[in-house]
Amino acid sequence: MALEVFWGSGSGPAWRVLLALAIKGLPYESHLLSFSKGEHKTPEMLAMNPRGKVPVLKDGAYVLSESLAILTYLDRKHPATPLFGESAEEAGQIMRVIMEHECYGLDAISAFCRPLLFGRMDTQRDQVLLSIDGARAELMRLEEELASRPFLATSKVSAADAFVYPQLKTLERALGKPGAETVDHGLGPLSQVFPRLAAWCARIEALPGYDATYPPHWRES
Amino acid sequence: MALEVFWGSGSGPAWRVLLALAIKGLPYESHLLSFSKGEHKTPEMLAMNPRGKVPVLKDGAYVLSESLAILTYLDRKHPATPLFGESAEEAGQIMRVIMEHECYGLDAISAFCRPLLFGRMDTQRDQVLLSIDGARAELMRLEEELASRPFLATSKVSAADAFVYPQLKTLERALGKPGAETVDHGLGPLSQVFPRLAAWCARIEALPGYDATYPPHWRES
Repeated sequence: MALEVFWGSGSGPAWRVLLALAIKGLPYESHLLSFSKGEHKTPEMLAMNPRGKVPVLKDGAYVLSESLAILTYLDRKHPATPLFGESAEEAGQIMRVIMEHECYGLDAISAFCRPLLFGRMDTQRDQVLLSIDGARAELMRLEEELASRPFLATSKVSAADAFVYPQLKTLERALGKPGAETVDHGLGPLSQVFPRLAAWCARIEALPGYDATYPPHWRES
Repeated sequence: MALEVFWGSGSGPAWRVLLALAIKGLPYESHLLSFSKGEHKTPEMLAMNPRGKVPVLKDGAYVLSESLAILTYLDRKHPATPLFGESAEEAGQIMRVIMEHECYGLDAISAFCRPLLFGRMDTQRDQVLLSIDGARAELMRLEEELASRPFLATSKVSAADAFVYPQLKTLERALGKPGAETVDHGLGPLSQVFPRLAAWCARIEALPGYDATYPPHWRES
């Protein structure tokens, strides 16, 4: 029975799972849900995840939510091309990068992105301005992780890359939104300000199967 | 060379690591740091974790921060008495419980606890009142996880238990602080409101080695 993935276009956590499946080369049945139609909150979806969030993975009778849990499951079930390293030391580093992003990076960078993505620069300009230093500090830390290796936590692509990458693309998207050019943010373009992160993004985008993970509605606008 | 653990009394993330070491029965060299003296922000500590947070694990030359990363490392390095289950399915469930707590439970319950713990009921009473429903909803979810099994994610004690338990004890401590009795919170005592959680706490506390993990300054006041 095929793996089934329930996801939404532009959801960072869902994108992590699609990237992990691409890295492992695992085939899956895609269920792209429309957030605007509330398809992630139907009774069927709430039965699989009472929080009404994507991604959700279904593998036969086994159902799982939370992106990091899904990455963990996939890696234990299909150990080829490991997502969590080849040693205890690598596994620790990978999880450190993931949890630093979860606990610090995500909120810091999202505080900058969200008002731009939701067209709220008129009312939330101050929040954007206040968020810049924190976002830059977290991006600098990620840039530093890449000083000695091609991927965030180890020499090969890992769960850390799948976990963090969607946030970087969300930042790039926010930087292209109306109003971003009116802020002296110094956060982009990535290729100029964070060249290692830009090169790392290109490495992820060269992975076989990457194209199928890209948020469909981002191609339109 | 012995494992070295740098921790602080009352730090939930540090407690998780001590619990994991107790569950696995691994000996370690304890470095108890004083937060009030700033011992977690010394140059030596910042060299090991630039964020200046505990816990930090040192295993010979290998240094690691972030509690979940340390649990991951310990489990890969010392596989006996697994913290992340005996199958892919169990590993996924364990990580789901952990990440639900990290993403939702922790903030919801901390919002209630923090003003009580820091003696700020006079200025933050409204925040406490506003936090009650969210905290209760998350506690109900945990209570529900225990409906069909003795531990949070699987039939045996796992990383999920080590990860969540310190938060429950922090809640119990907050409920005993001055001012808590003036709020109609309905969150405790655990044994009356969330009997499964109370029984689960007792199970954790019966584990060999538990006593050494208890925050020393909590015994004093």
